[in-house]
Amino acid sequence: MTEKRLDGSEVYSGKILHVMVDRVELPDGKEATREYVGHPGAVCVVPINERGEVLCVRQFRYTHGRVFLEIPAGKLEIGETDRAAAALRELREETGARCESLTFIGDFIPSPAILGEVISMYIAEGLSMGDTDPDDDEFIDIEAIPLDKLAEMCVSGEIADGKTIAAVLKAKYILDKR
Amino acid sequence: MTEKRLDGSEVYSGKILHVMVDRVELPDGKEATREYVGHPGAVCVVPINERGEVLCVRQFRYTHGRVFLEIPAGKLEIGETDRAAAALRELREETGARCESLTFIGDFIPSPAILGEVISMYIAEGLSMGDTDPDDDEFIDIEAIPLDKLAEMCVSGEIADGKTIAAVLKAKYILDKR
Repeated sequence: MTEKRLDGSEVYSGKILHVMVDRVELPDGKEATREYVGHPGAVCVVPINERGEVLCVRQFRYTHGRVFLEIPAGKLEIGETDRAAAALRELREETGARCESLTFIGDFIPSPAILGEVISMYIAEGLSMGDTDPDDDEFIDIEAIPLDKLAEMCVSGEIADGKTIAAVLKAKYILDKR
Repeated sequence: MTEKRLDGSEVYSGKILHVMVDRVELPDGKEATREYVGHPGAVCVVPINERGEVLCVRQFRYTHGRVFLEIPAGKLEIGETDRAAAALRELREETGARCESLTFIGDFIPSPAILGEVISMYIAEGLSMGDTDPDDDEFIDIEAIPLDKLAEMCVSGEIADGKTIAAVLKAKYILDKR
């Protein structure tokens, strides 16, 4: 099934987005082009406090022109390979929380066809709260929502952010089985 | 929290990808740029047969250099607004199945910050099988996996495709409550 790269180049290099177009050989020997966006990778965290609430963030997403309810998340920094450390940083920057335990619960690939991004998902427990430290262009409201209610909001369609649906429903399964 | 568009333009126009860069005014009056990929939208389907199995597709995803196990999905055609019709088409093209009932279970937004894509998720039931009709550059293997097993594969991390994790876990919740 493999597609073999023949050649290719970066056709757009922006501040965040880098578009690549490669010429590939298909399994039947024919040629096709593959156009995709490179990405440094990212992390997201389901932070659960001692009351069983998930710390969520509300922020405006310009691309969709509205506010989204999401779990804390962020991109890896250039050259960063320690995804757990990135998860702890993003959790602290966006919610002010530190945690005693961080559990990896799998990778989330937002759009396998066109986007190289891989988001590593974590559950954070044993939270203690401090100050937030958002990026200069981030405006974030924090909201604590009981895990059961948040899972219902994911199932009902009220929450549309992909990583939030996936990570919250995974966390609910995992915690229900403990 | 709203960000107001000041101006902007399409900075890259490819076969599939269209990159926009807009200058925006932030809630505090400062300026920032927002770089994002426009997208026509898409659909995905959890097709469940009379044995409680989900028809999945395995296909090579060049962007990630490996085969993914996913539920059937596809982009809307230019100008297409009937998402349910698109779901029926993609289901038929990729798996050969037609269905008696199609249930909308919410939207999945793969990457709210940088990608304009909205994937509408459906459950398809009452399946009858016919011939597949994949796109010229699509090489797809079909595999029927019991819903409970597939949900476990989503929870364990074996499945990484975002829309598959989200739609399958939603479908499991919804069908378990019936």
